[in-house]
Amino acid sequence: MELLRRKIREKGIVVDEDVLKVDSFLNHCIDPKLMQAIGKEFADRFRHDGVTKILTIESSGIAPAVFTGLELDVPVVFAKKDLSRNMSCDIYDACVHSFTKGRDYMVCVSKEYLNDTDKVLIIDDFLANGRAAAGLGELVTMSGASVAGIGVVIEKGFQKGGSLLREMGFRVEALAIIDSMSENGIIFRNEEEKRK
Amino acid sequence: MELLRRKIREKGIVVDEDVLKVDSFLNHCIDPKLMQAIGKEFADRFRHDGVTKILTIESSGIAPAVFTGLELDVPVVFAKKDLSRNMSCDIYDACVHSFTKGRDYMVCVSKEYLNDTDKVLIIDDFLANGRAAAGLGELVTMSGASVAGIGVVIEKGFQKGGSLLREMGFRVEALAIIDSMSENGIIFRNEEEKRK
Repeated sequence: MELLRRKIREKGIVVDEDVLKVDSFLNHCIDPKLMQAIGKEFADRFRHDGVTKILTIESSGIAPAVFTGLELDVPVVFAKKDLSRNMSCDIYDACVHSFTKGRDYMVCVSKEYLNDTDKVLIIDDFLANGRAAAGLGELVTMSGASVAGIGVVIEKGFQKGGSLLREMGFRVEALAIIDSMSENGIIFRNEEEKRK
Repeated sequence: MELLRRKIREKGIVVDEDVLKVDSFLNHCIDPKLMQAIGKEFADRFRHDGVTKILTIESSGIAPAVFTGLELDVPVVFAKKDLSRNMSCDIYDACVHSFTKGRDYMVCVSKEYLNDTDKVLIIDDFLANGRAAAGLGELVTMSGASVAGIGVVIEKGFQKGGSLLREMGFRVEALAIIDSMSENGIIFRNEEEKRK
């Protein structure tokens, strides 16, 4: 998605060879027009896959997910990382290991919002080691629903999450895949290779 | 906003006289079309107020905020409740007391996303005791920016947050104000009184 790659080139900050900061349009400050375009792009890629629900994870997945949900005309469920809120005890939960934070955390969804007739599109902001997306996939499987695919805004192609999820049989669509990054700039995987 | 009140009547679950569960369209499962309508309504109410930025708080504020941002064509910043992420140390922070959770938590925003030329519209899902909105107001004040107003999806009119914020001089726009609720149903403040 050229618009996104341009935005990453212009506004993304390469902190080091592993960390890209996109706080200025995705993770802290959100560019609503870009999110709308991202939602349309995800919807185009999954429009004929019978998606009945979108599943994302708080917080940075919510903006791209709601615009995708609007385009596909389906509800958006966001998995929570914290059980201490106004949730019923009737939940599906999975454990996810965060390399960034160096710890495990739980993701959970109320049973009432996923069921065995659902075909679920998983949306997230970043794909690095793939643990968050795999955890969301587990929640879907627990409910008896099926995964239509996984849509991520930015995939770090130099980390193993993408290959891991594709080897697990998931269809993964990334709107921008970064092959490498350094102080000299960001190298994106080219368009033709993007869907491999 | 009649569409919202209808949705609350149809889908809201009155847990007790203080707690309304709207997990099925706002706080866990999100109805994107309703969020779009909510964004348009907030935009209509603040269209002539020179808003340059929207400030909300993760996670349930994000969906209504991004649709408002799209309509007003301004960026959306979401305050974070957790410092352990990829944020710079250069932040504004404020302490908020949560009655629901029975504890204090910090809300913070990177200094780079609020500045003294901004006119900020604060958006949140619920207004009850008003502490979260007041905390966001503090962040805006710290940055030297001004508050254009506070837009909340649902105000619990029987709790003191609304009066408190209005007494502090904030313009508060609530799309649905609940005067009371019980097992017998929900009583909304009527349209004519809504903007008082």
